[in-house]
Amino acid sequence: MDSLQCGTSPIVGFRFSLHPMTGDFIKVIKRALNDTDTSNVWMHTDDVSTVIRGKQVHVFNVAKALALQTAKTGEHVALSGTFSIGCPGDSSGDVYLEKDDVLVNTDNTQQYVSSQFALYPMNNPDYMAVIYREVERAKHQGVFNDSMHYASGIHGDIHEVFDFYEEAFTNARSDKHRHLVMTISMSINSPSHGGA
Amino acid sequence: MDSLQCGTSPIVGFRFSLHPMTGDFIKVIKRALNDTDTSNVWMHTDDVSTVIRGKQVHVFNVAKALALQTAKTGEHVALSGTFSIGCPGDSSGDVYLEKDDVLVNTDNTQQYVSSQFALYPMNNPDYMAVIYREVERAKHQGVFNDSMHYASGIHGDIHEVFDFYEEAFTNARSDKHRHLVMTISMSINSPSHGGA
Repeated sequence: MDSLQCGTSPIVGFRFSLHPMTGDFIKVIKRALNDTDTSNVWMHTDDVSTVIRGKQVHVFNVAKALALQTAKTGEHVALSGTFSIGCPGDSSGDVYLEKDDVLVNTDNTQQYVSSQFALYPMNNPDYMAVIYREVERAKHQGVFNDSMHYASGIHGDIHEVFDFYEEAFTNARSDKHRHLVMTISMSINSPSHGGA
Repeated sequence: MDSLQCGTSPIVGFRFSLHPMTGDFIKVIKRALNDTDTSNVWMHTDDVSTVIRGKQVHVFNVAKALALQTAKTGEHVALSGTFSIGCPGDSSGDVYLEKDDVLVNTDNTQQYVSSQFALYPMNNPDYMAVIYREVERAKHQGVFNDSMHYASGIHGDIHEVFDFYEEAFTNARSDKHRHLVMTISMSINSPSHGGA
């Protein structure tokens, strides 16, 4: 498979679905999109999901802003998606890498979120050690919620949770192991959790 | 990392969230659970997701049945989740492996679904070839919908789509490479797709 090396492209992508549990789901999603500045990422929506691509800082910034703006409706909202970088099959297009690093979504409203994540460092024999290290870091940072099959629970204020996820996504890859995938599933305003 | 070998356990797990886009989401989920026979899988629900574990045939059978029963409400429903087997960190508990292979959910009602999937064969240097082979098989079987960043589109009748997913999950692992992860994201009764 010499023809399929992981690239050196810094393109980060996030393919996700945002699910407001209300009959007004289209209105809720449109309002969140309207209240989020997505000018720093390339974005495409199809009948199942939406993908955003760009510099890592902007992809995480837009993902968090979309979740936060949707949460502000008060509706029960779920966000599930996959962050990815360095896939050998990825193409170099559909991305805005010339943007500077200034974050454009700066709403710092607090919002409790409960979430779960899994890291998949590809083609890395030491991948389990990488995963355990990030889970330990979550405990140290106070965002760890629970151990479970196939994932780890991360919760707290949305800003602390996304900070943890962006750091984990940086820590879990290296020059030698460039292809990294991270799945997250997030629940906001759920009747199943109290909110703190 | 010699201490973390992929196990030989045949336990398959599916951690998923089912999102009916309606204010009545609790009623819709409870009705689907009530109409699905989950006796062949171990099941646990927390504030973000649900996990089922057991023999592969039953995990896929229950996953499909839950999606189908939820779809029958006519509501727009999204299912997202991760199938997993062979994780070195997995535990041997919480599973019903003594069940026979007789499927207990046999409702064959047709239902159009549009979905996306990604395969992550862990610690396998040839993983891209494994992925490409399964995408080619989707085209051959007539369930391939579209190419896209980070995933592949799979659509058609729910029974054909789940058959494809279960076969892909079998094909993409081997005795040498036991740890396999497959993510799926599925949309049913969506206003964004016509239904055929």
